[in-house]
Amino acid sequence: MKITSVGGRPSFHRITDEVRAFIAESGINDGVCVVSTHHTTCSVMTQEDSIDLTYNGLEYLQQDLWDVFEQLIPTTRAEGQYRHPGPELTEFSREHGESKPETLNTDAHLRSVFIGRSETLPVVDGTLDLGSFGHIYFIDFDHTRPREREVSITVMGD
Amino acid sequence: MKITSVGGRPSFHRITDEVRAFIAESGINDGVCVVSTHHTTCSVMTQEDSIDLTYNGLEYLQQDLWDVFEQLIPTTRAEGQYRHPGPELTEFSREHGESKPETLNTDAHLRSVFIGRSETLPVVDGTLDLGSFGHIYFIDFDHTRPREREVSITVMGD
Amino acid sequence: MKITSVGGRPSFHRITDEVRAFIAESGINDGVCVVSTHHTTCSVMTQEDSIDLTYNGLEYLQQDLWDVFEQLIPTTRAEGQYRHPGPELTEFSREHGESKPETLNTDAHLRSVFIGRSETLPVVDGTLDLGSFGHIYFIDFDHTRPREREVSITVMGD
Repeated sequence: MKITSVGGRPSFHRITDEVRAFIAESGINDGVCVVSTHHTTCSVMTQEDSIDLTYNGLEYLQQDLWDVFEQLIPTTRAEGQYRHPGPELTEFSREHGESKPETLNTDAHLRSVFIGRSETLPVVDGTLDLGSFGHIYFIDFDHTRPREREVSITVMGD
Repeated sequence: MKITSVGGRPSFHRITDEVRAFIAESGINDGVCVVSTHHTTCSVMTQEDSIDLTYNGLEYLQQDLWDVFEQLIPTTRAEGQYRHPGPELTEFSREHGESKPETLNTDAHLRSVFIGRSETLPVVDGTLDLGSFGHIYFIDFDHTRPREREVSITVMGD
Repeated sequence: MKITSVGGRPSFHRITDEVRAFIAESGINDGVCVVSTHHTTCSVMTQEDSIDLTYNGLEYLQQDLWDVFEQLIPTTRAEGQYRHPGPELTEFSREHGESKPETLNTDAHLRSVFIGRSETLPVVDGTLDLGSFGHIYFIDFDHTRPREREVSITVMGD
């Protein structure tokens, strides 16, 4: 599944409906569904929909999460703030088409390992039990630019 | 599986025996066991039993985890401390039976995404390998009140 | 799979090739691969290889992660800094062959629950999709001494 992230702020994309449709098509009744992303600045989480929106379109709880991360792992503003990206990685990334400012995404790499790369959800009676208010969100913590991203959905069971 | 959480502090419930019994009953020898919770203020983690207890009945390591979270994501004392819950969510929650103080659980929502909603554990020879001292804990970070909570256990394999 | 950790700093071990070989041998084409560790001071994460190395042999991003943890959950220097290990656990550990300094690993226990005990990765067409630069790392956050550690790899599917 493809997602286009935004730049300038972390991207949160609600993908509950897409995951539910994938499970329905799979025909699997009992088992697990793994929703994951291989991008090393991205995460998958389940959380409630918190309705109220900030000026830049984030749900309040998403903005609160961002605020917590600004204290723990501040947004990268300049080289030297973190060790990563070092000179060798900067050169390597340049050879693979990234500009210098685009490699200043250390915060996104670190934030994504705290939230995790996947969610594993039980499938019961052919559907997902997310409780009354739960949703699945794909997050791209890299705010250096908009990008095309991939989410993988795997359903296993009978 | 049902668990009744406590109010006034985060709830930690050791569920190792229940998970082991579930696997034994499943008859599955090799595969994985997913222990998860759909509540968006709750987590599942594996950790050692740290024996010594605080005055309020938490194992020392659980109290240490709580202390870390008080620095990173302090307990919600009043509205405005976090953006969540905003006015629309507060109204929505009221319609679904929650009082205003009960919606002041932002810390619990945020803490739960840091610790994660599930553990995926290998099943080998019909049993769980948790090492010498490992245990499975269900956590409810929401300390606004005691609540009935659900943990889901899924075993897959042959 | 056995890994020997180092002392004096957190251990990071890249295990991507070993996991890929295990999947190839399993003959499974479509499903999931769970890479996990039962040690309660250890984690598994996926992250990019950040090439540049610090004086003590850590990739820059690994050192950055360590730096973040020093703020949030500082390395244990002396008893009383955290509640864990309490007197009962210290005595219990002594009976199981651990010296007093070796029980001063509270930071490692807490750090490991933030990063998580496992990764669940989709297997497609008999292989792992880790993106262009993704790798799998085993981490031992316990730096009190070198130790023999275990990583478990489970592949499920058809």
